[in-house]
Amino acid sequence: MNDETLTRTTLLGASSDAATRVFTTILTRSPISRTDVSRLTGLSQAAVTKAVTPLVAAGLVNDSLDPTPTGLPGRPVSPVAVVPDAVVALGVKVNVDELVGVATDLTTRIITSDRLPLLSHDPVAVADAIVAMCDRLQEGLGGLEARLACIGVSVSGDVDSDTGMVRDSALMGWRGVDLGALLRERLGVTIVVENDVRALTIGEHWFGVGLGTGSFAIVTIGRGIGSGLHLNGEVVEGAYGVAGEIGHLPLTSRDRLCACGRRGCVEAVAATDAIVAAVSAAHGRAVPIGEAVDLARAGDSAAAGAFAEAGTVIGAAIASVVNMIGPELVIIGGEGVANFDLFEGPLRRSYAEHVFGSADRCRIVVRPHTFEDWARGAAASAIRSLVV
Amino acid sequence: MNDETLTRTTLLGASSDAATRVFTTILTRSPISRTDVSRLTGLSQAAVTKAVTPLVAAGLVNDSLDPTPTGLPGRPVSPVAVVPDAVVALGVKVNVDELVGVATDLTTRIITSDRLPLLSHDPVAVADAIVAMCDRLQEGLGGLEARLACIGVSVSGDVDSDTGMVRDSALMGWRGVDLGALLRERLGVTIVVENDVRALTIGEHWFGVGLGTGSFAIVTIGRGIGSGLHLNGEVVEGAYGVAGEIGHLPLTSRDRLCACGRRGCVEAVAATDAIVAAVSAAHGRAVPIGEAVDLARAGDSAAAGAFAEAGTVIGAAIASVVNMIGPELVIIGGEGVANFDLFEGPLRRSYAEHVFGSADRCRIVVRPHTFEDWARGAAASAIRSLVV
Ligand SMILES: [Zn+2]
Ligand SMILES: [Zn+2]
Repeated sequence: MNDETLTRTTLLGASSDAATRVFTTILTRSPISRTDVSRLTGLSQAAVTKAVTPLVAAGLVNDSLDPTPTGLPGRPVSPVAVVPDAVVALGVKVNVDELVGVATDLTTRIITSDRLPLLSHDPVAVADAIVAMCDRLQEGLGGLEARLACIGVSVSGDVDSDTGMVRDSALMGWRGVDLGALLRERLGVTIVVENDVRALTIGEHWFGVGLGTGSFAIVTIGRGIGSGLHLNGEVVEGAYGVAGEIGHLPLTSRDRLCACGRRGCVEAVAATDAIVAAVSAAHGRAVPIGEAVDLARAGDSAAAGAFAEAGTVIGAAIASVVNMIGPELVIIGGEGVANFDLFEGPLRRSYAEHVFGSADRCRIVVRPHTFEDWARGAAASAIRSLVV
Repeated sequence: MNDETLTRTTLLGASSDAATRVFTTILTRSPISRTDVSRLTGLSQAAVTKAVTPLVAAGLVNDSLDPTPTGLPGRPVSPVAVVPDAVVALGVKVNVDELVGVATDLTTRIITSDRLPLLSHDPVAVADAIVAMCDRLQEGLGGLEARLACIGVSVSGDVDSDTGMVRDSALMGWRGVDLGALLRERLGVTIVVENDVRALTIGEHWFGVGLGTGSFAIVTIGRGIGSGLHLNGEVVEGAYGVAGEIGHLPLTSRDRLCACGRRGCVEAVAATDAIVAAVSAAHGRAVPIGEAVDLARAGDSAAAGAFAEAGTVIGAAIASVVNMIGPELVIIGGEGVANFDLFEGPLRRSYAEHVFGSADRCRIVVRPHTFEDWARGAAASAIRSLVV
């Protein structure tokens, strides 16, 4: 971290609400004319110009682009654009068995990426591994090291992103692990710890398929069933750090016991482990998920039935999200999307059965996120913290 | 509608985002110092002063109040305050069997109220009755008639508040009824038609128990089970007009058929009609809701069981809202609150069983809304349309 970066961070941190809106608009839609910035932010042209000036001075925004001919008489339009290389961010996604890391520019374009096996869930060991990952990513920056401004880390579970405290992560077996503090004493830049699905949602909002929509939800399927919600221009964080927790909605029979200890949860039927357990029980032996997928595709009724039951419950969960918040768009992601063919029919039937009224106009798209996309989300949440 | 009012409406309609935020802050927290307006809006003192000047000129805000001594050296603080009588709004809640109407000032303080039986659900007849109600309310304004600026009408169901179209109201038996158009041709002021629970939510946000919270949900129990959500500073409207529809979340057994035609809905067990049907079936005769309440309080096991089952499903529905959006506060309202003792134990047990992680810190309060409160909500949504 150098003085140049510090100045930028402080500049954005101390900036007005108008400056933040102007910068995020330029960040996500470069190159863009000042007129369009004004239209999209609802600010006057004068206010836009006032906000742009210090951003240009700080090297974050470029206003010396070639004018775009408008085909109309009068002055050509001078667009402004973000300077992608002005800031470097790192993003690390903590998976149960490995870390996936990326270094990105200000627009979350990936500069370099890396993976590192995770040998222990001990918080200090995980922090060590994250530091090692950050060191390796910085080695791949090719001269941009000095621009490193922030690091985002994303973890499954109940995370307080204001402090970096992981309050509860079933996947990591953590309760009250202050990952933010562990990392801050080791790494000299802004650290953001965020719930993994919310981080992905921030990435999709700023730089992905959510850009330009007024509201959307990401629903992830796989090891866990989660969701991230974007409403009224902001990620829904939850007053106490919990939001989008659709994995434990009681949408199935009380006979089904969830790993969380509750009864009737979505995950009790639809999480990877639940599918594995159902197929294994039917076959009287341990059937790994890959084989369960093969069996289902080959027409094995127990395996196909387990995926169908999961799809039915996930469809009800998506209908619940849509009935409750009425998004324009639902993005289905998560590693389970690789086998979406096995969920899809029952999922769509169940969704159609339970979605209410005109909420059924909500578009549903399936998007196979790579682990690098998840790590980009972590980087996006760190970049957002510099700006918002 | 007179010219004086027109000017005001136009002024607010054309005002900047900053002016809107300043005005809503003054509206909901009068009297308030400019310093506090600046702090709460995040705007500079200069921007606050710039926004206040035209509001004072329009007669909406008073800046000539007695200065408040601060006990500190220097200038005393001059608070600003809304002028409540600057604008009169009418609010009409459409119930299945009657209209409840109020005339309010700009702060939704009730000036006069009235009720009118609804003899038909024919849309034109209902519009006639709403016009008659508005005429009667205006007679009670005592000289303020010229200040009437807006009328809000709230109806249960899927309502497009941008146009005033009631897309689907099971309670009224309406599909695609353009109530806004029917009223606009009869009444000469701004007309807002809004979903009834969302209108109540707007009222609670601006002038009720939701004031000062960052996020809250209203859950209504009774004839229907609904909710209104307030997040990130705005009511959640739903991209296609549907949001907060918890009454049809599939949280109970598929054996239970809902009036909407779906299976397993919350309302299939917890709506007043469902409770009445269960108690009637157990006793082999038609038991009205009042008698079902008496029977349950007297220990009749079928009646007590029906309320307990309803409470269990409502508790799961509230946990679903809390897990999904993580509000600070849930307000339980609706006519069913009059018998909350019969729901409460099972409701709280079921809520505690399904709420996830630190979301359980969400406060839950019970608030018996009168029908006049619902009509105030309709007035609040009309006032909001003048300002936002
Ligand atoms: Zn669970
Ligand atoms: Zn239903």
